[in-house]
Amino acid sequence: MIKDGDRVLLYGEDGTKFLVKVEAGKKKGTHLGVVEFDSIIGMNYGDIVKIGKTNKSYYILPPTYIDDIFSMKRKTQIIYPKDSSYILLKLDIKPGKRVIDTGVGSGAMCAAMARLVGENGKVYAYERREDFYNLATQNLTEWGLIDRVELKLRDISMGFDETNIDALLLDVPDPENYIQQCWQALAGGGMMGVICPTVNQVSMVLEKMYELPFIDVEVWESLMRQYKPYPNRLRPVDRMVAHTTFLVFARKVNSFIKTE
Amino acid sequence: MIKDGDRVLLYGEDGTKFLVKVEAGKKKGTHLGVVEFDSIIGMNYGDIVKIGKTNKSYYILPPTYIDDIFSMKRKTQIIYPKDSSYILLKLDIKPGKRVIDTGVGSGAMCAAMARLVGENGKVYAYERREDFYNLATQNLTEWGLIDRVELKLRDISMGFDETNIDALLLDVPDPENYIQQCWQALAGGGMMGVICPTVNQVSMVLEKMYELPFIDVEVWESLMRQYKPYPNRLRPVDRMVAHTTFLVFARKVNSFIKTE
Amino acid sequence: MIKDGDRVLLYGEDGTKFLVKVEAGKKKGTHLGVVEFDSIIGMNYGDIVKIGKTNKSYYILPPTYIDDIFSMKRKTQIIYPKDSSYILLKLDIKPGKRVIDTGVGSGAMCAAMARLVGENGKVYAYERREDFYNLATQNLTEWGLIDRVELKLRDISMGFDETNIDALLLDVPDPENYIQQCWQALAGGGMMGVICPTVNQVSMVLEKMYELPFIDVEVWESLMRQYKPYPNRLRPVDRMVAHTTFLVFARKVNSFIKTE
Amino acid sequence: MIKDGDRVLLYGEDGTKFLVKVEAGKKKGTHLGVVEFDSIIGMNYGDIVKIGKTNKSYYILPPTYIDDIFSMKRKTQIIYPKDSSYILLKLDIKPGKRVIDTGVGSGAMCAAMARLVGENGKVYAYERREDFYNLATQNLTEWGLIDRVELKLRDISMGFDETNIDALLLDVPDPENYIQQCWQALAGGGMMGVICPTVNQVSMVLEKMYELPFIDVEVWESLMRQYKPYPNRLRPVDRMVAHTTFLVFARKVNSFIKTE
Repeated sequence: MIKDGDRVLLYGEDGTKFLVKVEAGKKKGTHLGVVEFDSIIGMNYGDIVKIGKTNKSYYILPPTYIDDIFSMKRKTQIIYPKDSSYILLKLDIKPGKRVIDTGVGSGAMCAAMARLVGENGKVYAYERREDFYNLATQNLTEWGLIDRVELKLRDISMGFDETNIDALLLDVPDPENYIQQCWQALAGGGMMGVICPTVNQVSMVLEKMYELPFIDVEVWESLMRQYKPYPNRLRPVDRMVAHTTFLVFARKVNSFIKTE
Repeated sequence: MIKDGDRVLLYGEDGTKFLVKVEAGKKKGTHLGVVEFDSIIGMNYGDIVKIGKTNKSYYILPPTYIDDIFSMKRKTQIIYPKDSSYILLKLDIKPGKRVIDTGVGSGAMCAAMARLVGENGKVYAYERREDFYNLATQNLTEWGLIDRVELKLRDISMGFDETNIDALLLDVPDPENYIQQCWQALAGGGMMGVICPTVNQVSMVLEKMYELPFIDVEVWESLMRQYKPYPNRLRPVDRMVAHTTFLVFARKVNSFIKTE
Repeated sequence: MIKDGDRVLLYGEDGTKFLVKVEAGKKKGTHLGVVEFDSIIGMNYGDIVKIGKTNKSYYILPPTYIDDIFSMKRKTQIIYPKDSSYILLKLDIKPGKRVIDTGVGSGAMCAAMARLVGENGKVYAYERREDFYNLATQNLTEWGLIDRVELKLRDISMGFDETNIDALLLDVPDPENYIQQCWQALAGGGMMGVICPTVNQVSMVLEKMYELPFIDVEVWESLMRQYKPYPNRLRPVDRMVAHTTFLVFARKVNSFIKTE
Repeated sequence: MIKDGDRVLLYGEDGTKFLVKVEAGKKKGTHLGVVEFDSIIGMNYGDIVKIGKTNKSYYILPPTYIDDIFSMKRKTQIIYPKDSSYILLKLDIKPGKRVIDTGVGSGAMCAAMARLVGENGKVYAYERREDFYNLATQNLTEWGLIDRVELKLRDISMGFDETNIDALLLDVPDPENYIQQCWQALAGGGMMGVICPTVNQVSMVLEKMYELPFIDVEVWESLMRQYKPYPNRLRPVDRMVAHTTFLVFARKVNSFIKTE
């Protein structure tokens, strides 16, 4: 049952979506009409809220992570679900893990990790720019995840405070300059992921990685294609995202095997 | 520090991988030589274990989910990481959720969900075939996830025992026949995913979905391409997986908006 | 040297393109200024034409087939170069061949074939709709290819006039209804191609093909991705064409091998 | 009607293919049995040849370009149809054109061009290695295309003999070293294509191109995916070619527009 203070997704008959915080006595104006929050409180998810005098309605849905990030305030390019989902699995993020996210940007990837590490895990999040730091703090607070995140306004060139970290995501404009610092923070066997939009960045990151005890180095890219969901005229959509980023993954070991 | 009974990944100099359970006094024979488990106990992840008299060695790594599923005993086609990762994000699986997985097969997807729902969540897992049911039980036990899973040897044509489920994954040969049962089990606003290897299945599933209060119906496919990680000769690999499955997603609502 | 009556491509400093017919005494107005055709006559391809009093200029280029089709008058969806190029190779179109194109639409594919069959080949082109027939006639005339094409305003349900055809392209809304007629027109060993935007059409076409002596049946789709051509920030473009059509190919034989 | 000396494709019931030259009195041994060429002479394409005393048969088909290149003797990686088809269209190869192909390798791309330029066109083909030169000569002779090709055993570092060339394909291990020579050979407005298997080559080629009057610089890659042609279980194949080469295209102009 929906309570005062809950975040809900209004899903319109026309497919439009609004993510709102339900507050008693307040309302949300939309192009279909005004939604009175008092009429939502006490409803169940999956129910329909009618709009005042018009015949228009919205479905009331619980927001998913994907709803959250496409509705949030942001100042930066976000990591798309096609990429963030694979990163989460590859970095083996799960309840109880201690992980690093840097740079934080608007906080979307940080949130993705924080959701999964649960109450017993922790995300250490480093961001250099104050405006991003503030925005991420605001977004993570709104999502109720701030307690699982230790946000730091900090340049990472001097390294991280933590060691023995399970996994680390590096998402900065010049990732090739921080590979050493990442290796330092990771636990033996820890997983590292790097966001590299250009092939030149991939090459530079690989070169730096090979100078340190990293193994299982992999480079991936993900293409997702959507279909028009018409049973009798089923076909892919006309246009799709062609590229977001290349993904570089590696695993820290404590030293290289010496081959004599 | 690695203890007796831990599961570890042996990662060879030559890139080969063996996932083993470390048991005091025992050993594992490999093509590079014999690994004595006693020499691993007390080591740290990321360390190197030397093999008897040869010069060969293995890195000792903590197994990730991806390591687990590619090492497990299986009798069925598994859902690839490119797909399972997107399903987990799209179905919004996270600590505390109550979800259904059916059919279970070898248990890989069930394990992926169980890892993320944590100790306070639950996976209800339905499997019709006894041999798969037994294998999944065995695999989930080995992974230490069996306590989060309620495995049932059952045909789903009569429906599920649970209601008000947060998310459900349907992975059976004839998914079009169980859409009604899935709708019944889901909570309002709950997420549904369907595995459909062929386009014909997609069409049939869509037709059935449109007969029930489902919204936000989407069809996706995921292509992941790996690169040869050579900084100065960077290029995609020669061959890749062309297809595993189409993914159909939808969201349950309690009833359709009536448009007069 | 460019002569009165030549068709040339004006390629602007800003990347814009205009395909014009150079006519003595005339001119072309563009957003960069007015191009006097008299100043182009006598120039060479690859030269630069300055615009009147401004500092703007255009490169003068010989139009390619791709320039032609993206500049032509059209009323129909065209077959994209990624698809038409593969069709031309797969159908083995080359000088001297006798081929059928139907439906003709705006004439782009017909032109592609006519260019390659040369003066000793022939394209038999069937179009049902008079407006398309007229438009195709006009386009093919403008491109100087009309002599190689025999355009017919005709429904193909009664079949084709020709037999012993080397290759045939079927591009109509209901291709599954004309497979028999196509088989009839083709020579033994002749190549057939079918345009099928939806998977449902592919299934229906395949079913019909298997009822007749066709072998080597193949279904393909082509994805082409462009890159941002920056040497130091090389990466794919952000968005791409996700789908145009599936391509079905088959080869006529005179009868099936009987397997007793 | 098939005559003595014709090249034909034997297409087996089991999908196997043999490209043979029919010679009176001779025969071809295959895993299905021996094919007597005398029994083929006088048949029509699309007919069936029975094998001696067995119940096995072959279809007799006219070889296409794709049949040719997958049956030829080769010592080099060939350019795949997905790429060669797009190159041919993009470079605007058609009857009457004068084009350059270098390096020639086994001669497949040279043949593709020679087929299309027809009797009034010409392919100037440069190859540095004598073994490739000999093999290409042999293959082009077998395909009956040698008269349209001027094959030269020559290093291209000193440039090409020809000028005013309509189109040029550069396919050598170090393409970045010959961009100047290519510009020299091309006509104003002429089209250039470069084969670059790695991203590093793409970057280097782009850098060199930008130093010369080339415009309309584009980088592409082509992915083609095949489907299992089962009408009721239609789906892509399991594995596909992930990468062959990147394609760089540009157009020569005589000089750059000066922007003051």
